[in-house]
Amino acid sequence: MIKIAVDAMGGDYAPKEQIEGAMFAVEKISDIEITLYGDKEKINTHLREHPRIKVVESQGVIDMGEKDPIRAIRSNRKSSMAMSLTSVRKEENDAIVTSGATQALIAGAHILVGRMKNMKRTAIAPVIPTVKRNMILLDTGGNMEIRPEYMVQQAYFATIYAREVLGIKDPSVGLINVGTEEGKGRELEGEVEKLFFENERINFYGNVEPKDVLNPPADILISDGFTANIVMKTIEGTAKGMGVMLKEELSRGILGKLGLLLSYRNLKRFKKRMDPAEIGGAMIYGLRGVVIKAQGSSKKLGFYNAIRQAAHVVRQDVIGKVSATIEKEEA
Amino acid sequence: MIKIAVDAMGGDYAPKEQIEGAMFAVEKISDIEITLYGDKEKINTHLREHPRIKVVESQGVIDMGEKDPIRAIRSNRKSSMAMSLTSVRKEENDAIVTSGATQALIAGAHILVGRMKNMKRTAIAPVIPTVKRNMILLDTGGNMEIRPEYMVQQAYFATIYAREVLGIKDPSVGLINVGTEEGKGRELEGEVEKLFFENERINFYGNVEPKDVLNPPADILISDGFTANIVMKTIEGTAKGMGVMLKEELSRGILGKLGLLLSYRNLKRFKKRMDPAEIGGAMIYGLRGVVIKAQGSSKKLGFYNAIRQAAHVVRQDVIGKVSATIEKEEA
Repeated sequence: MIKIAVDAMGGDYAPKEQIEGAMFAVEKISDIEITLYGDKEKINTHLREHPRIKVVESQGVIDMGEKDPIRAIRSNRKSSMAMSLTSVRKEENDAIVTSGATQALIAGAHILVGRMKNMKRTAIAPVIPTVKRNMILLDTGGNMEIRPEYMVQQAYFATIYAREVLGIKDPSVGLINVGTEEGKGRELEGEVEKLFFENERINFYGNVEPKDVLNPPADILISDGFTANIVMKTIEGTAKGMGVMLKEELSRGILGKLGLLLSYRNLKRFKKRMDPAEIGGAMIYGLRGVVIKAQGSSKKLGFYNAIRQAAHVVRQDVIGKVSATIEKEEA
Repeated sequence: MIKIAVDAMGGDYAPKEQIEGAMFAVEKISDIEITLYGDKEKINTHLREHPRIKVVESQGVIDMGEKDPIRAIRSNRKSSMAMSLTSVRKEENDAIVTSGATQALIAGAHILVGRMKNMKRTAIAPVIPTVKRNMILLDTGGNMEIRPEYMVQQAYFATIYAREVLGIKDPSVGLINVGTEEGKGRELEGEVEKLFFENERINFYGNVEPKDVLNPPADILISDGFTANIVMKTIEGTAKGMGVMLKEELSRGILGKLGLLLSYRNLKRFKKRMDPAEIGGAMIYGLRGVVIKAQGSSKKLGFYNAIRQAAHVVRQDVIGKVSATIEKEEA
């Protein structure tokens, strides 16, 4: 049995959607057991009993807007997020899924789960739906400034993840850059380019300009934690803005309104296709345990997908395989 | 009369669309004179004579994919781009509009037009259509790494441009960042934040996350030349990718196809609304003359809009006003 801790209290729709996602997951996936961490009383108003779901009482939630996430975690060891993280450290659970505050989660994961041996930095890596395939984008939030060598380790992790979890045979890695030619970009890009080219374990595609970001020529797009976060948020902002303009324009005129009506199901499918929650959450790479961050706005299906993803990562022993690769490197 | 040099040979559809744009511009705008630089024979197959359009013969074009743009400019002083740039330096023209290669243009503008006195760095600043207003984005390509003080000068330029050309009363400046709270981001963002807050000439909104990039809370979004370029290209890539997916989804099913047909005009309007060429080109800030880069794929209307924009910048004496501001600063 794969044991998954679910932080039932973090996120916009907690605990209802978390619990519904968990109930759906145990129905659909037969080799998992879920422990919900949270306020038992609140949880029990939504939970139907199930032999593979249990509840552990926790106290309090880490606020989304927490100014000092490290302090928040240190002073709330009984919070649902802290307790579920600790359960992974203690090996009571194999993975944790949460839609709680990202910065607190990163801090908490470092303090309570800990980094893998020889792993220099963690990274956050969402999977983004694109025109033809799913793409891994990293690092969307860990490290504002980073050394090129550390990005090599992150590329290993993403490569193994893409192979084992997304089922891509020989995943290619693209470096986010302002041009496709060699030597484009800042000093960082120049150094990373060289390291990636030389490295046999990385199937390096070369530079990728974000004007191909939703139709990328590589399976993995990598940059530092500032840039990749900006890319992720610009995708989000453009999609949102375009959605508003599309809605405004499509509802003009009587024929237009009729057209909109007839296109309703197709537009809904379009929206669903763009929704990253359909794929799961963002994994934090580089920890001793499997930590999946579902979007704060995740609902039942988003949560279910994140749980499914967590189970898959455990099943494929992604962390073990990355550890082995990094150890070879260090030896 | 405002005198505008048009590089007739650079860009995907040269010289036809350039010439049509120029002819349309002299018809619509009464206080401009245009000089087309290019291959006279080719130009004359498209040009109808007009008292306010003349042609100057040039030799050769700077290639889009030029590996060494500085050398390309230095060794092609008779090219259409180099000659039109030089005409601005010699004050034969007040402005130049080109859709030639960006990197060669930046190099050429530095060598042949020159930077404004006391201006530390140039910047490229396109105007981007958003849900509610047009937004200036900079620097989308000049400087891969930059000092915070230089961004202050660039913010002055954008502010004056927004006021004089876009007609915004008290333009606000947002700093592109990974979070809205003070202190977010890299060292650069921290320093720029402080400088902008202290500065009375900058109406500083604060940090802006790109998840609001198409519905921004500020008139101007600023970052270094690497990040802003990544943002611009991510907007482009997301729009393109979403467009493909939208088309695929909307054409599903018979009712869907009918809906698509009825929505045809509205979808066309939507596409037009998203098109930056509708607004004009990107101005290169910080030069001794007005240099406007139209998109490489510009057609007649895109070119016309870029010419209109160039005339407006000259009419409002944007460069004179920025010079005065920077001189006060230096004194």
